[in-house]
Amino acid sequence: MKIAILVYPGMTALDAVGPYEVLAQLRGAEVSFVGRQRGPVTCDTGALTLLAEKSIDEVPLADVLLVPGGPGDQRARADERLLSWLRAIHAGSRWTTSVCTGSLILGAAGVLEGLKATTHWLRLEALADYGAKPVAARFVEAGKVITAAGVSAGIDMALHLAAREAGERVAQAIQLSLEYDPQPPFACGAPQKAPEALVEAVSGAFDGIMAERMAKLEQAGS
Amino acid sequence: MKIAILVYPGMTALDAVGPYEVLAQLRGAEVSFVGRQRGPVTCDTGALTLLAEKSIDEVPLADVLLVPGGPGDQRARADERLLSWLRAIHAGSRWTTSVCTGSLILGAAGVLEGLKATTHWLRLEALADYGAKPVAARFVEAGKVITAAGVSAGIDMALHLAAREAGERVAQAIQLSLEYDPQPPFACGAPQKAPEALVEAVSGAFDGIMAERMAKLEQAGS
Repeated sequence: MKIAILVYPGMTALDAVGPYEVLAQLRGAEVSFVGRQRGPVTCDTGALTLLAEKSIDEVPLADVLLVPGGPGDQRARADERLLSWLRAIHAGSRWTTSVCTGSLILGAAGVLEGLKATTHWLRLEALADYGAKPVAARFVEAGKVITAAGVSAGIDMALHLAAREAGERVAQAIQLSLEYDPQPPFACGAPQKAPEALVEAVSGAFDGIMAERMAKLEQAGS
Repeated sequence: MKIAILVYPGMTALDAVGPYEVLAQLRGAEVSFVGRQRGPVTCDTGALTLLAEKSIDEVPLADVLLVPGGPGDQRARADERLLSWLRAIHAGSRWTTSVCTGSLILGAAGVLEGLKATTHWLRLEALADYGAKPVAARFVEAGKVITAAGVSAGIDMALHLAAREAGERVAQAIQLSLEYDPQPPFACGAPQKAPEALVEAVSGAFDGIMAERMAKLEQAGS
């Protein structure tokens, strides 16, 4: 099973790496990190660089497509060559998936038209710009398209996908091998659960932090 | 605050990338991915390569040290130059931390002598070889040393560390920004919670899978 994980400058690493750890354990999984071209891809903090082992031109087909999010999504959404690759991969995929604002990139590629979908809680409304129906959920399965909420939601989504592909027992074994028995120190990981003041503080700071990260990356020439 | 994250061939990417996403959001955080030498580091599946932006020789001090685990831990534990660097960093650190079998590497460096510590549930007993007292817990704080359980436990540990360093409110904001509201599809992420047959199946297969991953990496020259 060919699994193509898109990587692009300004992506959030955990969006990709969480699901990758799950999906790479599926029997017969061939995971490729795929960039616009081969080579280093700097993630959103500027501190972590992943290698794109293949360019989009080298990957004409995939069974599973995974599109991570991050502040670099804006540039990705404006990249016609990339969007056209996503459309082509989606046309032949068994599953087309995203984490966080990766769904906005899928949206820009036209993949979400008429579908229920989700994304990072701070970007939910933007999904409607692409004809999607925003849903506040950990992940949303709509036909073969599965979109996950912000960053860490990709792990839950990937375990769900593993169960859909290989059965619950396999997914459970993967979950146990990753010791995925989350015990978050606070009960505030979603806006519905967090105190209002915290939601407001994060909402107020988020755009600035993302813009700052992208400005730093652009300065560094990524 | 200087945060040094060790990277080495055969590491498990999520061990490092989970905590990184948390800690990189701390005000003043300067995160470095540090390898034995600069350059590409292939993770345990062979499919993902991270860049070490700095070599251990370039990093004489860090406030926070994070050591990930993975099947490559065995080679790392036998690498005297690496262990001596870990000892030096630990001597000056505010926090010395590990995820999964990263604690075995800390153990090999002599850091865990007499301390309570944890690791991946399948490797708990190995901690005693290094004079540590194994504890089955999501993470264990012993003085300035915090060791986390398998793979995904690093996220919980890092949020705890963020709260210890910067206060609960900051840690909560980070948790909300990462939408860390985990909803694992199964209640089997720890051996105490999983059906016995599943625990046995994963225990039986684990060593073989890890050995296979390392053999592939060595074939590929990593």
